[in-house]
Amino acid sequence: MSQRKRLIVDMDGVLADVYQQFFKYEKEQFQLTINPDDCAGVPEEQVFPHLSEYIHNDSFFLDAPLMEGSKEVFEKLNKQYDLYIVSAAMEFPNSLRQKLAWLQNHFPFIKWQQIVFCGSKEVIKGDIMIDDHFKNLDYFDGKTYLFAQPHSIHKDAGRHERVQSWSEIAQALLA
Amino acid sequence: MSQRKRLIVDMDGVLADVYQQFFKYEKEQFQLTINPDDCAGVPEEQVFPHLSEYIHNDSFFLDAPLMEGSKEVFEKLNKQYDLYIVSAAMEFPNSLRQKLAWLQNHFPFIKWQQIVFCGSKEVIKGDIMIDDHFKNLDYFDGKTYLFAQPHSIHKDAGRHERVQSWSEIAQALLA
Repeated sequence: MSQRKRLIVDMDGVLADVYQQFFKYEKEQFQLTINPDDCAGVPEEQVFPHLSEYIHNDSFFLDAPLMEGSKEVFEKLNKQYDLYIVSAAMEFPNSLRQKLAWLQNHFPFIKWQQIVFCGSKEVIKGDIMIDDHFKNLDYFDGKTYLFAQPHSIHKDAGRHERVQSWSEIAQALLA
Repeated sequence: MSQRKRLIVDMDGVLADVYQQFFKYEKEQFQLTINPDDCAGVPEEQVFPHLSEYIHNDSFFLDAPLMEGSKEVFEKLNKQYDLYIVSAAMEFPNSLRQKLAWLQNHFPFIKWQQIVFCGSKEVIKGDIMIDDHFKNLDYFDGKTYLFAQPHSIHKDAGRHERVQSWSEIAQALLA
């Protein structure tokens, strides 16, 4: 049995910068420029009017850019923690293969044993969770970090510790 | 919060009769008839010599027959328990979409929120787990049922309770 702490990391909005994808798809496919200020405190489905039209396609998740500063920190975390990537992917069947390929592209050191695609994260156990959604963090028994994303910017983090960036994650979790 | 107990059910070897698929593929694609007696106590990879050649294809998991007696019992369990299907699917990327479609075909009452595809089941928490592999049951904190399949037939079930069929599951778990 590993003595390392089990760290659960979310994909969308934590490792993958999905907001950049939303901006890009609204602009390129619908000639709609969304102002970043309009995202503050508003659920993604409300601020991006065509989201349901492109989120099911074959490249939305595959082409998503890495969250700034995530790559190096994530590789170091993988050496210090029993690391799992847990993504609520089941709502979007087309995303499953894309997300697997995305992880292999960006983090070739991650093994398939470390990947979980689920509908609800209520069944996940671990010591530490990093996620941008309260609906995931609220059910978790361990220490929880709320990764700052526009949709939750005005909310009280409650028992969760808010982190603004991957450098803040590094400060909090890397020895 | 639900007061119902959370029940975690495996797919391959519990809901899906993968041994029937192994027999069929060995025979149809390689003209090899495997004797069911040869499966007793032997890992699948050892008894089915061409397994690695067809398990990655586009239909192995999609066409798998239902385990005998599973359908009605499973539907009843879904009404009495907080039911999740957890499958170690990540080793076979081609299986992800197949397994999702298989579940939709056979159990249309199952919601995407109830499905988990993982590499390792070490991260799964719940009250009861039904699985045919020790590697999954051994890490689980709750009550564990070992679903009898040829590969584990000679092994001591240890702390796990052995069930031979879906009617035995019904006896154990349905009110």
